[in-house]
Amino acid sequence: MSLPRKVNDLSEVLSSLPGIGPKLSNRLALYLSVSGKDRAQMLSQILDQVITDITQCEICGNVTETTICEICSDELRDKSIIIVVEDALDLYSIETTHTYKGLYHVLGGVISPINGIGPEELNINSLVARIKDAKISEVVIATNPNVEGDSTAMYIKNEINKINSDLKISRLAKGIPVGSDLEFVSGQTIIDSFKRRDSL
Amino acid sequence: MSLPRKVNDLSEVLSSLPGIGPKLSNRLALYLSVSGKDRAQMLSQILDQVITDITQCEICGNVTETTICEICSDELRDKSIIIVVEDALDLYSIETTHTYKGLYHVLGGVISPINGIGPEELNINSLVARIKDAKISEVVIATNPNVEGDSTAMYIKNEINKINSDLKISRLAKGIPVGSDLEFVSGQTIIDSFKRRDSL
Repeated sequence: MSLPRKVNDLSEVLSSLPGIGPKLSNRLALYLSVSGKDRAQMLSQILDQVITDITQCEICGNVTETTICEICSDELRDKSIIIVVEDALDLYSIETTHTYKGLYHVLGGVISPINGIGPEELNINSLVARIKDAKISEVVIATNPNVEGDSTAMYIKNEINKINSDLKISRLAKGIPVGSDLEFVSGQTIIDSFKRRDSL
Repeated sequence: MSLPRKVNDLSEVLSSLPGIGPKLSNRLALYLSVSGKDRAQMLSQILDQVITDITQCEICGNVTETTICEICSDELRDKSIIIVVEDALDLYSIETTHTYKGLYHVLGGVISPINGIGPEELNINSLVARIKDAKISEVVIATNPNVEGDSTAMYIKNEINKINSDLKISRLAKGIPVGSDLEFVSGQTIIDSFKRRDSL
Protein backbone atom coordinates (compact mmCIF):
# COMPACT_ATOMS: atom_id res chain seq x y z
CA MET A 1 0.00 0.00 0.00
CA SER A 2 1.02 3.61 -0.46
CA LEU A 3 0.37 6.92 1.29
CA PRO A 4 -3.29 8.09 1.37
CA ARG A 5 -4.08 9.86 -1.92
CA LYS A 6 -4.40 13.34 -0.42
CA VAL A 7 -1.12 13.07 1.49
CA ASN A 8 0.44 11.95 -1.77
CA ASP A 9 -1.08 14.90 -3.63
CA LEU A 10 0.32 17.24 -0.98
CA SER A 11 3.73 15.61 -1.32
CA GLU A 12 3.62 16.06 -5.11
CA VAL A 13 2.78 19.76 -4.90
CA LEU A 14 5.56 20.24 -2.33
CA SER A 15 8.12 18.41 -4.47
CA SER A 16 7.30 20.70 -7.41
CA LEU A 17 8.60 23.67 -5.39
CA PRO A 18 12.24 24.80 -5.81
CA GLY A 19 14.67 23.15 -3.37
CA ILE A 20 12.30 20.43 -2.13
CA GLY A 21 13.18 16.89 -3.22
CA PRO A 22 10.98 13.77 -3.04
CA LYS A 23 12.29 12.62 0.38
CA LEU A 24 11.70 15.99 2.04
CA SER A 25 8.32 16.43 0.35
CA ASN A 26 7.10 13.07 1.74
CA ARG A 27 8.34 13.97 5.20
CA LEU A 28 6.69 17.40 5.06
CA ALA A 29 3.40 16.00 3.70
CA LEU A 30 3.17 13.47 6.52
CA TYR A 31 4.15 16.03 9.13
CA LEU A 32 1.51 18.50 7.89
CA SER A 33 -1.13 15.72 7.79
CA VAL A 34 -0.62 14.44 11.32
CA SER A 35 1.41 16.13 14.04
CA GLY A 36 1.76 19.46 12.23
CA LYS A 37 -1.91 20.12 11.43
CA ASP A 38 -1.73 23.49 13.21
CA ARG A 39 1.17 24.45 10.92
CA ALA A 40 -0.82 23.25 7.90
CA GLN A 41 -3.63 25.58 8.99
CA MET A 42 -1.27 28.53 9.41
CA LEU A 43 0.41 27.79 6.10
CA SER A 44 -2.88 27.58 4.22
CA GLN A 45 -4.10 30.88 5.71
CA ILE A 46 -0.94 32.83 4.99
CA LEU A 47 -0.78 31.39 1.46
CA ASP A 48 -4.29 32.71 0.80
CA GLN A 49 -3.23 36.16 2.04
CA VAL A 50 -0.09 36.14 -0.10
CA ILE A 51 -2.06 35.05 -3.19
CA THR A 52 -4.46 38.00 -2.81
CA ASP A 53 -2.20 40.72 -1.45
CA ILE A 54 1.29 40.29 -2.86
CA THR A 55 2.02 41.71 -6.28
CA GLN A 56 4.97 43.04 -8.27
CA CYS A 57 5.99 46.70 -8.28
CA GLU A 58 4.78 48.35 -11.49
CA ILE A 59 8.09 50.14 -11.89
CA CYS A 60 10.83 47.70 -10.89
CA GLY A 61 9.18 44.26 -10.55
CA ASN A 62 10.06 43.88 -6.83
CA VAL A 63 7.57 42.03 -4.57
CA THR A 64 5.25 44.43 -2.80
CA GLU A 65 1.92 44.80 -1.03
CA THR A 66 1.36 48.14 -2.78
CA THR A 67 1.31 49.17 -6.47
CA ILE A 68 4.70 50.84 -6.23
CA CYS A 69 7.26 49.20 -3.91
CA GLU A 70 8.87 50.78 -0.86
CA ILE A 71 12.14 51.40 -2.68
CA CYS A 72 10.68 53.01 -5.81
CA SER A 73 8.43 55.25 -3.69
CA ASP A 74 11.26 56.34 -1.37
CA GLU A 75 12.03 59.98 -2.20
CA LEU A 76 15.44 59.79 -0.52
CA ARG A 77 16.88 57.16 -2.84
CA ASP A 78 19.26 58.05 -5.67
CA LYS A 79 17.14 57.92 -8.84
CA SER A 80 20.12 58.04 -11.21
CA ILE A 81 21.42 54.50 -10.72
CA ILE A 82 19.72 51.13 -11.23
CA ILE A 83 21.00 47.70 -10.16
CA VAL A 84 19.49 44.96 -12.32
CA VAL A 85 18.96 41.68 -10.40
CA GLU A 86 17.56 38.27 -11.34
CA ASP A 87 15.01 38.05 -8.54
CA ALA A 88 13.79 39.83 -5.43
CA LEU A 89 15.98 37.68 -3.14
CA ASP A 90 19.06 39.13 -4.84
CA LEU A 91 17.62 42.60 -4.24
CA TYR A 92 17.24 41.85 -0.52
CA SER A 93 20.78 40.44 -0.37
CA ILE A 94 22.05 43.79 -1.62
CA GLU A 95 19.70 45.72 0.70
CA THR A 96 21.05 43.90 3.78
CA THR A 97 24.47 45.51 3.14
CA HIS A 98 22.86 48.95 3.85
CA THR A 99 25.33 50.68 1.52
CA TYR A 100 23.51 51.04 -1.78
CA LYS A 101 20.92 53.84 -1.95
CA GLY A 102 19.91 53.68 -5.61
CA LEU A 103 17.08 51.88 -7.41
CA TYR A 104 16.61 48.31 -8.64
CA HIS A 105 15.10 46.43 -11.54
CA VAL A 106 14.01 42.82 -11.00
CA LEU A 107 14.22 40.72 -14.19
CA GLY A 108 12.30 37.72 -12.86
CA GLY A 109 14.96 35.25 -14.07
CA VAL A 110 17.65 34.98 -16.75
CA ILE A 111 17.57 34.16 -20.46
CA SER A 112 17.75 30.37 -20.58
CA PRO A 113 16.84 28.75 -23.93
CA ILE A 114 17.12 25.27 -22.35
CA ASN A 115 14.31 26.19 -19.91
CA GLY A 116 12.34 27.99 -22.62
CA ILE A 117 12.96 31.43 -21.11
CA GLY A 118 13.57 34.08 -23.75
CA PRO A 119 14.08 37.85 -23.28
CA GLU A 120 10.32 38.47 -23.71
CA GLU A 121 9.62 36.39 -20.55
CA LEU A 122 11.75 38.79 -18.49
CA ASN A 123 11.23 42.42 -17.41
CA ILE A 124 13.74 43.73 -19.95
CA ASN A 125 11.45 45.95 -22.03
CA SER A 126 10.32 47.75 -18.88
CA LEU A 127 13.98 48.35 -17.97
CA VAL A 128 14.69 49.87 -21.38
CA ALA A 129 11.55 52.02 -21.03
CA ARG A 130 12.73 53.26 -17.61
CA ILE A 131 16.09 54.26 -19.07
CA LYS A 132 14.38 56.07 -21.94
CA ASP A 133 12.04 58.02 -19.65
CA ALA A 134 14.15 58.87 -16.59
CA LYS A 135 17.52 60.51 -16.03
CA ILE A 136 19.61 57.39 -15.37
CA SER A 137 23.38 57.79 -15.31
CA GLU A 138 24.43 54.18 -14.61
CA VAL A 139 23.04 50.67 -14.85
CA VAL A 140 24.80 47.94 -12.82
CA ILE A 141 23.91 44.48 -14.08
CA ALA A 142 24.03 42.10 -11.11
CA THR A 143 22.87 38.85 -12.71
CA ASN A 144 24.66 35.82 -11.26
CA PRO A 145 28.23 35.17 -12.53
CA ASN A 146 27.48 32.11 -14.66
CA VAL A 147 26.88 31.44 -18.38
CA GLU A 148 23.20 32.40 -18.31
CA GLY A 149 23.75 35.43 -16.09
CA ASP A 150 26.61 36.64 -18.31
CA SER A 151 24.70 36.23 -21.57
CA THR A 152 21.64 37.94 -20.07
CA ALA A 153 23.91 40.84 -19.05
CA MET A 154 25.27 41.09 -22.62
CA TYR A 155 21.75 41.01 -24.05
CA ILE A 156 20.62 43.82 -21.74
CA LYS A 157 23.70 45.89 -22.55
CA ASN A 158 22.94 45.60 -26.28
CA GLU A 159 19.29 46.55 -25.77
CA ILE A 160 20.26 49.61 -23.72
CA ASN A 161 22.92 50.65 -26.25
CA LYS A 162 20.27 50.70 -29.00
CA ILE A 163 18.56 53.61 -27.30
CA ASN A 164 21.48 55.18 -25.44
CA SER A 165 24.99 54.21 -26.44
CA ASP A 166 26.64 56.59 -23.94
CA LEU A 167 25.05 55.26 -20.74
CA LYS A 168 27.50 53.77 -18.27
CA ILE A 169 26.75 50.05 -17.91
CA SER A 170 28.70 47.99 -15.38
CA ARG A 171 28.71 44.51 -13.89
CA LEU A 172 29.53 43.40 -10.30
CA ALA A 173 33.24 42.48 -10.05
CA LYS A 174 34.16 38.79 -10.18
CA GLY A 175 36.79 37.60 -7.72
CA ILE A 176 37.53 35.63 -4.60
CA PRO A 177 34.70 35.95 -2.05
CA VAL A 178 35.73 37.44 1.31
CA GLY A 179 36.21 34.73 3.94
CA SER A 180 36.70 31.92 1.43
CA ASP A 181 39.75 29.75 0.88
CA LEU A 182 41.64 29.58 -2.47
CA GLU A 183 41.50 25.80 -2.17
CA PHE A 184 37.73 25.83 -2.62
CA VAL A 185 37.48 28.53 -5.27
CA SER A 186 37.02 27.55 -8.94
CA GLY A 187 39.88 27.95 -11.43
CA GLN A 188 37.91 30.51 -13.44
CA THR A 189 37.42 32.61 -10.30
CA ILE A 190 41.18 32.56 -9.66
CA ILE A 191 41.86 33.56 -13.29
CA ASP A 192 39.34 36.43 -13.06
CA SER A 193 40.71 37.65 -9.74
CA PHE A 194 44.30 37.46 -11.05
CA LYS A 195 43.39 39.56 -14.11
CA ARG A 196 41.72 42.15 -11.90
CA ARG A 197 44.40 42.05 -9.18
CA ASP A 198 44.72 45.21 -7.04
CA SER A 199 48.03 46.89 -6.21
CA LEU A 200 48.82 46.90 -2.52
CA MET B 1 14.03 47.61 3.76
CA SER B 2 12.98 44.02 4.20
CA LEU B 3 10.56 41.59 2.53
CA PRO B 4 6.87 42.60 2.56
CA ARG B 5 5.32 41.52 5.88
CA LYS B 6 3.13 38.77 4.42
CA VAL B 7 5.99 37.24 2.45
CA ASN B 8 7.99 37.32 5.66
CA ASP B 9 5.14 35.64 7.58
CA LEU B 10 4.99 32.92 4.93
CA SER B 11 8.75 32.44 5.17
CA GLU B 12 8.51 32.11 8.96
CA VAL B 13 5.80 29.45 8.82
CA LEU B 14 7.80 27.55 6.19
CA SER B 15 11.01 27.69 8.23
CA SER B 16 9.16 26.17 11.21
CA LEU B 17 8.61 22.98 9.17
CA PRO B 18 11.06 20.08 9.50
CA GLY B 19 13.93 20.16 7.01
CA ILE B 20 13.39 23.75 5.82
CA GLY B 21 16.07 26.24 6.84
CA PRO B 22 15.89 30.05 6.69
CA LYS B 23 17.53 30.33 3.24
CA LEU B 24 15.17 27.82 1.63
CA SER B 25 12.13 29.29 3.39
CA ASN B 26 12.89 32.77 2.01
CA ARG B 27 13.36 31.35 -1.46
CA LEU B 28 10.12 29.38 -1.26
CA ALA B 29 8.15 32.31 0.16
CA LEU B 30 9.26 34.60 -2.69
CA TYR B 31 8.64 31.91 -5.29
CA LEU B 32 5.11 31.27 -3.96
CA SER B 33 4.39 35.04 -3.82
CA VAL B 34 5.43 35.85 -7.37
CA SER B 35 6.16 33.35 -10.14
CA GLY B 36 4.68 30.36 -8.31
CA LYS B 37 1.27 31.79 -7.43
CA ASP B 38 -0.45 28.86 -9.18
CA ARG B 39 1.52 26.48 -6.94
CA ALA B 40 0.57 28.55 -3.88
CA GLN B 41 -3.07 28.13 -4.88
CA MET B 42 -2.70 24.36 -5.34
CA LEU B 43 -0.80 24.04 -2.06
CA SER B 44 -3.41 26.00 -0.11
CA GLN B 45 -6.25 23.89 -1.55
CA ILE B 46 -4.64 20.53 -0.89
CA LEU B 47 -3.63 21.64 2.62
CA ASP B 48 -7.28 22.43 3.37
CA GLN B 49 -8.29 18.97 2.14
CA VAL B 50 -5.59 17.26 4.19
CA ILE B 51 -6.59 19.20 7.32
CA THR B 52 -10.21 18.03 7.02
CA ASP B 53 -9.80 14.53 5.61
CA ILE B 54 -6.60 12.99 6.92
CA THR B 55 -6.67 11.38 10.33
CA GLN B 56 -4.87 8.64 12.23
CA CYS B 57 -6.01 5.01 12.22
CA GLU B 58 -7.84 4.24 15.46
CA ILE B 59 -6.01 0.93 15.77
CA CYS B 60 -2.40 1.50 14.69
CA GLY B 61 -1.94 5.28 14.39
CA ASN B 62 -1.10 5.19 10.66
CA VAL B 63 -2.22 8.13 8.47
CA THR B 64 -5.51 7.39 6.76
CA GLU B 65 -8.56 8.91 5.08
CA THR B 66 -10.81 6.38 6.84
CA THR B 67 -11.32 5.49 10.52
CA ILE B 68 -9.36 2.25 10.19
CA CYS B 69 -6.39 2.29 7.80
CA GLU B 70 -5.94 0.15 4.70
CA ILE B 71 -3.48 -2.19 6.43
CA CYS B 72 -5.54 -2.81 9.60
CA SER B 73 -8.68 -3.43 7.54
CA ASP B 74 -6.94 -5.83 5.12
CA GLU B 75 -8.23 -9.33 5.93
CA LEU B 76 -5.32 -10.99 4.16
CA ARG B 77 -2.62 -9.59 6.45
CA ASP B 78 -1.04 -11.66 9.20
CA LYS B 79 -2.71 -10.46 12.44
CA SER B 80 -0.22 -12.19 14.74
CA ILE B 81 2.80 -9.92 14.22
CA ILE B 82 3.21 -6.18 14.77
CA ILE B 83 6.11 -3.99 13.67
CA VAL B 84 6.39 -0.90 15.88
CA VAL B 85 7.67 2.16 13.98
CA GLU B 86 8.36 5.77 14.96
CA ASP B 87 6.27 7.37 12.23
CA ALA B 88 4.21 6.59 9.15
CA LEU B 89 7.16 7.25 6.82
CA ASP B 90 9.00 4.33 8.43
CA LEU B 91 5.91 2.19 7.87
CA TYR B 92 5.91 3.10 4.16
CA SER B 93 9.65 2.37 3.91
CA ILE B 94 8.93 -1.18 5.13
CA GLU B 95 5.87 -1.48 2.86
CA THR B 96 7.91 -0.62 -0.24
CA THR B 97 9.93 -3.83 0.30
CA HIS B 98 6.71 -5.85 -0.38
CA THR B 99 7.89 -8.68 1.87
CA TYR B 100 6.24 -8.04 5.25
CA LYS B 101 2.56 -8.97 5.46
CA GLY B 102 1.84 -8.37 9.15
CA LEU B 103 0.50 -5.34 11.02
CA TYR B 104 2.06 -2.11 12.27
CA HIS B 105 1.88 0.23 15.21
CA VAL B 106 2.90 3.88 14.72
CA LEU B 107 4.30 5.49 17.89
CA GLY B 108 4.27 9.07 16.64
CA GLY B 109 7.87 9.67 17.77
CA VAL B 110 10.32 8.41 20.38
CA ILE B 111 10.79 9.08 24.07
CA SER B 112 12.99 12.17 24.21
CA PRO B 113 13.19 13.97 27.58
CA ILE B 114 15.26 16.76 26.00
CA ASN B 115 12.36 17.56 23.64
CA GLY B 116 9.79 17.07 26.40
CA ILE B 117 8.40 13.86 24.88
CA GLY B 118 7.54 11.26 27.49
CA PRO B 119 5.91 7.83 26.99
CA GLU B 120 2.44 9.35 27.52
CA GLU B 121 2.90 11.52 24.38
CA LEU B 122 3.34 8.38 22.26
CA ASN B 123 0.93 5.63 21.19
CA ILE B 124 2.39 3.13 23.67
CA ASN B 125 -0.71 2.48 25.81
CA SER B 126 -2.69 1.63 22.67
CA LEU B 127 0.03 -0.86 21.68
CA VAL B 128 -0.12 -2.58 25.07
CA ALA B 129 -3.93 -2.68 24.80
CA ARG B 130 -3.71 -4.30 21.35
CA ILE B 131 -1.40 -7.00 22.72
CA LYS B 132 -3.75 -7.62 25.64
CA ASP B 133 -6.83 -7.95 23.38
CA ALA B 134 -5.59 -9.78 20.30
CA LYS B 135 -3.62 -12.96 19.63
CA ILE B 136 -0.21 -11.44 18.92
CA SER B 137 2.75 -13.83 18.76
CA GLU B 138 5.56 -11.36 18.04
CA VAL B 139 6.32 -7.65 18.32
CA VAL B 140 9.23 -6.29 16.25
CA ILE B 141 10.39 -2.92 17.53
CA ALA B 142 11.71 -0.96 14.55
CA THR B 143 12.53 2.39 16.19
CA ASN B 144 15.64 3.97 14.69
CA PRO B 145 19.01 2.58 15.86
CA ASN B 146 20.11 5.51 18.02
CA VAL B 147 20.04 6.34 21.74
CA GLU B 148 16.42 7.54 21.78
CA GLY B 149 15.19 4.72 19.55
CA ASP B 150 17.00 2.13 21.68
CA SER B 151 15.68 3.46 25.00
CA THR B 152 12.15 3.71 23.60
CA ALA B 153 12.46 0.06 22.50
CA MET B 154 13.54 -0.95 26.03
CA TYR B 155 10.66 1.01 27.58
CA ILE B 156 8.13 -0.68 25.27
CA LYS B 157 9.62 -4.13 26.01
CA ASN B 158 9.22 -3.52 29.76
CA GLU B 159 5.62 -2.34 29.35
CA ILE B 160 4.73 -5.40 27.27
CA ASN B 161 6.45 -7.75 29.72
CA LYS B 162 4.27 -6.38 32.54
CA ILE B 163 1.20 -7.90 30.88
CA ASN B 164 2.78 -10.77 28.92
CA SER B 165 6.29 -11.88 29.83
CA ASP B 166 6.32 -14.71 27.28
CA LEU B 167 5.63 -12.69 24.14
CA LYS B 168 8.44 -12.72 21.60
CA ILE B 169 9.83 -9.19 21.28
CA SER B 170 12.52 -8.48 18.70
CA ARG B 171 14.39 -5.56 17.21
CA LEU B 172 15.61 -5.00 13.61
CA ALA B 173 19.22 -6.24 13.25
CA LYS B 174 21.97 -3.64 13.36
CA GLY B 175 24.79 -4.04 10.86
CA ILE B 176 26.40 -2.71 7.73
CA PRO B 177 23.81 -1.42 5.23
CA VAL B 178 23.82 -3.19 1.86
CA GLY B 179 25.64 -1.15 -0.79
CA SER B 180 27.63 0.90 1.73
CA ASP B 181 31.38 1.06 2.23
CA LEU B 182 33.11 0.13 5.53
CA GLU B 183 35.05 3.38 5.25
CA PHE B 184 31.87 5.41 5.78
CA VAL B 185 30.23 3.23 8.44
CA SER B 186 30.44 4.23 12.11
CA GLY B 187 32.67 2.31 14.54
CA GLN B 188 29.65 1.19 16.57
CA THR B 189 28.04 -0.25 13.43
CA ILE B 190 31.21 -2.23 12.71
CA ILE B 191 31.31 -3.50 16.32
CA ASP B 192 27.63 -4.54 16.13
CA SER B 193 28.06 -6.26 12.78
CA PHE B 194 31.20 -8.08 14.01
CA LYS B 195 29.36 -9.39 17.09
CA ARG B 196 26.52 -10.63 14.91
CA ARG B 197 28.78 -11.95 12.12
CA ASP B 198 27.30 -14.73 9.94
CA SER B 199 29.16 -17.92 9.03
CA LEU B 200 29.74 -18.27 5.30
